[in-house]
Parts: sequence; C-alpha cells; structure tokens
Amino acid sequence: MSAIPRYFQAKTKLLDLLAELPDGTPFPPERELAELFGMSRTTVRKALDELVLEGKLIRRTGRQGTAVAPRRQLHRVSLDTLVNDLAPRESVVVRTVGGQDVVNVEALLVRGDEPIGVRSAYLRAARFPGFAESYDRGVPLRRFLAEQYRVRFGDLHPWCTTALATPRVAGLLGVRPATPLLSVAWMAYDLRGVPVERSWVLLRSDRAQLTMHVPRTDHAVRRSSA
Amino acid sequence: MSAIPRYFQAKTKLLDLLAELPDGTPFPPERELAELFGMSRTTVRKALDELVLEGKLIRRTGRQGTAVAPRRQLHRVSLDTLVNDLAPRESVVVRTVGGQDVVNVEALLVRGDEPIGVRSAYLRAARFPGFAESYDRGVPLRRFLAEQYRVRFGDLHPWCTTALATPRVAGLLGVRPATPLLSVAWMAYDLRGVPVERSWVLLRSDRAQLTMHVPRTDHAVRRSSA
Repeated sequence: MSAIPRYFQAKTKLLDLLAELPDGTPFPPERELAELFGMSRTTVRKALDELVLEGKLIRRTGRQGTAVAPRRQLHRVSLDTLVNDLAPRESVVVRTVGGQDVVNVEALLVRGDEPIGVRSAYLRAARFPGFAESYDRGVPLRRFLAEQYRVRFGDLHPWCTTALATPRVAGLLGVRPATPLLSVAWMAYDLRGVPVERSWVLLRSDRAQLTMHVPRTDHAVRRSSA
Repeated sequence: MSAIPRYFQAKTKLLDLLAELPDGTPFPPERELAELFGMSRTTVRKALDELVLEGKLIRRTGRQGTAVAPRRQLHRVSLDTLVNDLAPRESVVVRTVGGQDVVNVEALLVRGDEPIGVRSAYLRAARFPGFAESYDRGVPLRRFLAEQYRVRFGDLHPWCTTALATPRVAGLLGVRPATPLLSVAWMAYDLRGVPVERSWVLLRSDRAQLTMHVPRTDHAVRRSSA
C-alpha cells in the first residue's frame, strides 16, 4: 500500500495532463477523470480544488468544469517597491477607527492590466492635517509624507505570512474568497521612534513573488572575529 | 441583501465565540452552530474549515468536532536566520537528480519543541567532494561550506510565495496536507557568480512570521538628487 494519499496521486496525474494542454483548454469533467484514474469523484475533486487554488486551473463560470489557466508571467515584486513605490489607484478614505481619526489609504498593485495585490495603510489624521484633501494620488504615500509633512522614516522590519482572502479582498483581486495570499505587514516609525504608518499588503501568490535582499555574509570573518 | 457571503458571516460569528473560550475548549458541533446561526451545515462547515486552516481551531482526532486551538506564540523568524543559522536535525541525503549527483540537506526549524519549518538545500556533489561524510550537522550549512570549502557567498535575493503542504511536508510539520505554508526560496552564488546552493524553506504561517529588513529611505535626498 502506498503512503501517498490518493488525492495527491490524482493531483500528480492531473499535473501531467495539464502539462500537455494549451492555455484555456477545457479540462475533462470530474466524472470522466474519476473513471480514468479509477478513483472516487470526491478524491478527484479535492485534487482539482488544489489546482484551482494554485492558479493552475480556472473554474469556468456559468457552467460546470474547469479549464487550463493561462500560464502567466510570475511578476517579481520587491519588498522595496511595496514599501516605497506603490501609488494608490483607489480612493483615499478617511475612517474613524476606535474613536481615533484614522486615514486609510488603499492602493492596488497592477501588473499587465491585472490587480495582483492590495496595500492598505493607516495614518493618524491628527498627525497629518489636511491629508485627505491634499494627497496627490499619483505620488507614492511615503514620498508624499516625506515631502509634505517632512517625515523622516527609519529602518523598517516588515513581517511576512499567509492569509486567506476575505470576500472584500477577493473581489478586489479577482480571486475566490479564502484563496491563500501572501501577506506583508509593517509598522513604520520616524527617526524619533514615533509610529507613523501601519500598512499591510496582500499579494496574489499565483501571480507575484516577493523578492527580498540578504546582504552577503562573510562567515570566515565572522568566525575569526568571534 | 448583504454582499457578504454567508460563510463569512458565519466565520465572523465563530471568531467572536472563539475569543471568549479558553484554549482546548471543545467547540459546539456543526449541527448546533447551524441551528444557532440559522444557516446550513455546509455554510458553517466552510467557516469551520477556514478556522482550522488558519490554526485557530483544531480537529479533534478519533471523533467528530473541533476545539479551540492553543493560542501559541507566533515565532518571529528572520530571513537571515533561515539563510545562515539553520542547522539540520534530519539526515543528510545524497540523491541523484537528473543524472547529476546532488546532495540534499534537510533541516527542521524547531521552536518550543515543535517543528515550524523545513529547509531543503541542494548542492552539486562534484563541487563538494566528501560532503556527505564530513558534514557536521551541528554547524549551519553555509558556515560549513564557507569554512571547509572556502566558499565566499555573494548577496542573496530570495523570493517569497505561498505553497500548499505536500503530504510529505505535512507529515514533517504536523499539519494537514494542502495547508497553506509560507515558502522562501533562493539560489546562492559565490563571489565569482557560480551557483552554489539552491534552497527552499516552508514555514507554518500559523506558528511563524518571517521578518525582513528594509533600510531607511531618504525620500528628500532621493528627489533632490533625481
């Protein structure tokens, strides 16, 4: 007996099949695949669901079944871009959160006409008087804050995890709710150590990879100086 | 009519309920929750499934139902730690891949007696003669390569995405297959630009956050020098 779960065996078979089909090809129906593999429909469905989640198959709307997802370029997005270069496409919203006036700035990250990520930033309104009225949406948020409010940002230590798309985010990014997304969040401080901006970014991991940078380490020097 | 899917409404209610219950409390059965919320069992199940995926509920083994997951500390793991400081706990395996002798080194990242990540590194055996016999498992891989084979590593540009746990990885990390994980991968080059090490790390995002570093940006200087 094999220790590999049957749905994973099915997934492996489906991946082989996928590799041979051009983009957009309707995929054989669940029932047919189940017969072909000699497996239950439940097993085949689980494997198909994973391939949809991974962006390798798409569900065809208005009818049963799936199709081979277009093999798109995986966009490489740098951490620095997320932090410094994202200009908002959506409206600047001033919301009241927990009794404090908070400005919420939402930006969509678009590549090839497709939204691949969304960034939501929160600022204290009292610190940035007139922000909602004066913000120039063509200018990335941090540059605007630096230039208009003379904020000097310190080093940043973002953290990265996974998150399931909420219905709202799913709508913005064109994915199904509960699709796993890559989440990057940070709290930005100014040089005096005062918190300025709380942001997080949700990225479609089937469309984008986050690139980072680790400076070279000289192990030999490290050891000899220890 | 609300635009929020019913399962998400159920999830919000379940999160409220969760917040009031201590760790390990058996959660009300699906049927009871469905009655309480006036929703179908399918809807409630979908919400419960997401909470299990997110590590907020656990499935009780050997019986139906779920329980409140222990609220564990989220371990903060730095990118530098993943790259430089991980010593393997598992065996060093020499495998032949694609006609080339490749050494595979697998390391488990353990925090608080629990595996929270796994790193798999691939080296060309020809470049590191005698590696499998001489490798000291108490020493992080890159330091060993630097000291024993005089490798000098250049800057690194890892990329980050999400991945669904394969059955094997799920077994190593104690999660269900297809659990979304955080994936970090890199190709390491030496200072002459020769590829040395191909690695990837899979992290349990319900247990660990990856921390990174973005050096401070002086926007004012940037603009004036442009």
